[in-house]
Amino acid sequence: MQNIQFYQDAFIEHLNAFVEPKKPETLYEPINYILQLGGKRLRPVLTLMTAEIFGCDYTKALHAALSVEVFHNFSLVHDDIMDDAPLRRGKTTVHEKWDINTGILSGDAMLIMAYRLFENYEPKVFQDLAKLFSKTALEVCEGQQYDVDFETRDDVTISEYLKMIEYKTAVLVGAAMKMGAIVADASEECRNSIYDFGKNLGVAFQLQDDYLDVFGDPETFGKQVGGDIIENKKTYLYLKALEFSKAEDRLQLEHLYSVSPSNPNDKIDTVKQLFESSGSAQATKAEIEHYTNKAFSVLESIKVSEDNKEALRAFGNSLMNRNV
Amino acid sequence: MQNIQFYQDAFIEHLNAFVEPKKPETLYEPINYILQLGGKRLRPVLTLMTAEIFGCDYTKALHAALSVEVFHNFSLVHDDIMDDAPLRRGKTTVHEKWDINTGILSGDAMLIMAYRLFENYEPKVFQDLAKLFSKTALEVCEGQQYDVDFETRDDVTISEYLKMIEYKTAVLVGAAMKMGAIVADASEECRNSIYDFGKNLGVAFQLQDDYLDVFGDPETFGKQVGGDIIENKKTYLYLKALEFSKAEDRLQLEHLYSVSPSNPNDKIDTVKQLFESSGSAQATKAEIEHYTNKAFSVLESIKVSEDNKEALRAFGNSLMNRNV
Repeated sequence: MQNIQFYQDAFIEHLNAFVEPKKPETLYEPINYILQLGGKRLRPVLTLMTAEIFGCDYTKALHAALSVEVFHNFSLVHDDIMDDAPLRRGKTTVHEKWDINTGILSGDAMLIMAYRLFENYEPKVFQDLAKLFSKTALEVCEGQQYDVDFETRDDVTISEYLKMIEYKTAVLVGAAMKMGAIVADASEECRNSIYDFGKNLGVAFQLQDDYLDVFGDPETFGKQVGGDIIENKKTYLYLKALEFSKAEDRLQLEHLYSVSPSNPNDKIDTVKQLFESSGSAQATKAEIEHYTNKAFSVLESIKVSEDNKEALRAFGNSLMNRNV
Repeated sequence: MQNIQFYQDAFIEHLNAFVEPKKPETLYEPINYILQLGGKRLRPVLTLMTAEIFGCDYTKALHAALSVEVFHNFSLVHDDIMDDAPLRRGKTTVHEKWDINTGILSGDAMLIMAYRLFENYEPKVFQDLAKLFSKTALEVCEGQQYDVDFETRDDVTISEYLKMIEYKTAVLVGAAMKMGAIVADASEECRNSIYDFGKNLGVAFQLQDDYLDVFGDPETFGKQVGGDIIENKKTYLYLKALEFSKAEDRLQLEHLYSVSPSNPNDKIDTVKQLFESSGSAQATKAEIEHYTNKAFSVLESIKVSEDNKEALRAFGNSLMNRNV
């Protein structure tokens, strides 16, 4: 087992060979642009690592890893249109740099290209990968739809919110790892366990993203701290604060989430205070802990070497910013 | 071999069982809406017919036929957004009835659902179907992109135009038939021949659509006659008229295709006259004939019974509105 940097480098090399000029340029240029915007490439790295953990050379899993990354970027291109987002990773989004039609069509092509990458495997592996991919991709669409629906609903429950982030974010982390296990021809039991590990870690990661969006260090978070509050996004922190608050605080919070002041600093400060005083911040941290531990406890049951478990634990901990 | 109506009915029954309420409703309602808007269901019928021609019960091909139809409707939903089209088959388009975001996301889900339908087949058939599907779907995207690009280009050649309609329309007709052959486990040679038959028929069909858009009977054409002229669409008729015309007529035609008069009747009449006087109308009819004959001559080489060939010829002729 190599370190994360090693798999990142190997993946980038494979990606760069894939990204070549194709015609019509108007279709493929935006695809190559978004694929080369960077990012941590966590999902494909997980695919490669998992293949090795189950005794398979990581090079065999490069096509599957690339498929996961192409799919992930497809979803970013279409989501950015839906969210009307001008920037992605600090660069202009595809539909802003070109136009909405380009974003739609190049996105569609990426979804198909993701499937095509499985053609590098023999029929049974191809089918296993494509079935998992389709199930996951449809759940990601459903998660995105729930996210859109929640914007105009004021009765979203905590369990609905958890289901939304599970579908929108976590299942792809689980699937990325399971694909590595499929390529490695691991047992059905191992495939499902590593999927559960990834999925639970994915939920923990997304909850932590919600938490850091409010309480993170502006120096290291990468996105604008307070962004979710400015956008009135009903995150776990918000829903839990509503649940824990007395009528007066609840009304204040609901009011704050119905306005969009041009200078949001006061609003951000007040909401932060309510998240803390209500106990929501603490409860969110506990929930992150809960899902991380759930992931680690699934890991215990998997029949791989202690070294490999330790590598996955280290990855999980580094992802959760918990220095061990 | 049954008649077309029989396969249409069988397909509709299969489709209706597939179209059921699923959650989130906001994602699946638009999908069920577009799938039930009607249409002639020509592509899935071709899949079923081809399966039977190669000695397989049509019922085995119902999943593949449905995949073709779901994909076709996915492309309609996304194309209608790109074309800003208010109506489809006389009814409100998805993005008009709901919104653009719904059109994007429900379309994405349909593309994935089309792949999932192949899961009803064993691994080798699954892979053959999915590979053909991916290749075809990517070509359809490329064809749509060429179509978009052509709108702002004034140097489109006849061969570029033919490639565009081949990709955007004809390959899916070929693929629909080849899928029937794959499910029937026909030989590689038969699969490729029936694909060529369908593809050539598809080109002929699209050229005829261009022709009827100008010279069709308003009573029976179904769409607004003259629509392509109103939209300044550079069809085969237009490109061929430019090629055949002397400088003066060419300038007039180019001018007419640069304006959009509120009352287009005079423009339509003049363009029609130029299409006829230049010889373009005649050349277009000859090209339709050429592709139809090409399809029928491929048919001769396929090793199936004369009865089956006759059934395909009859289907082709009825498609081309040529009563035999």
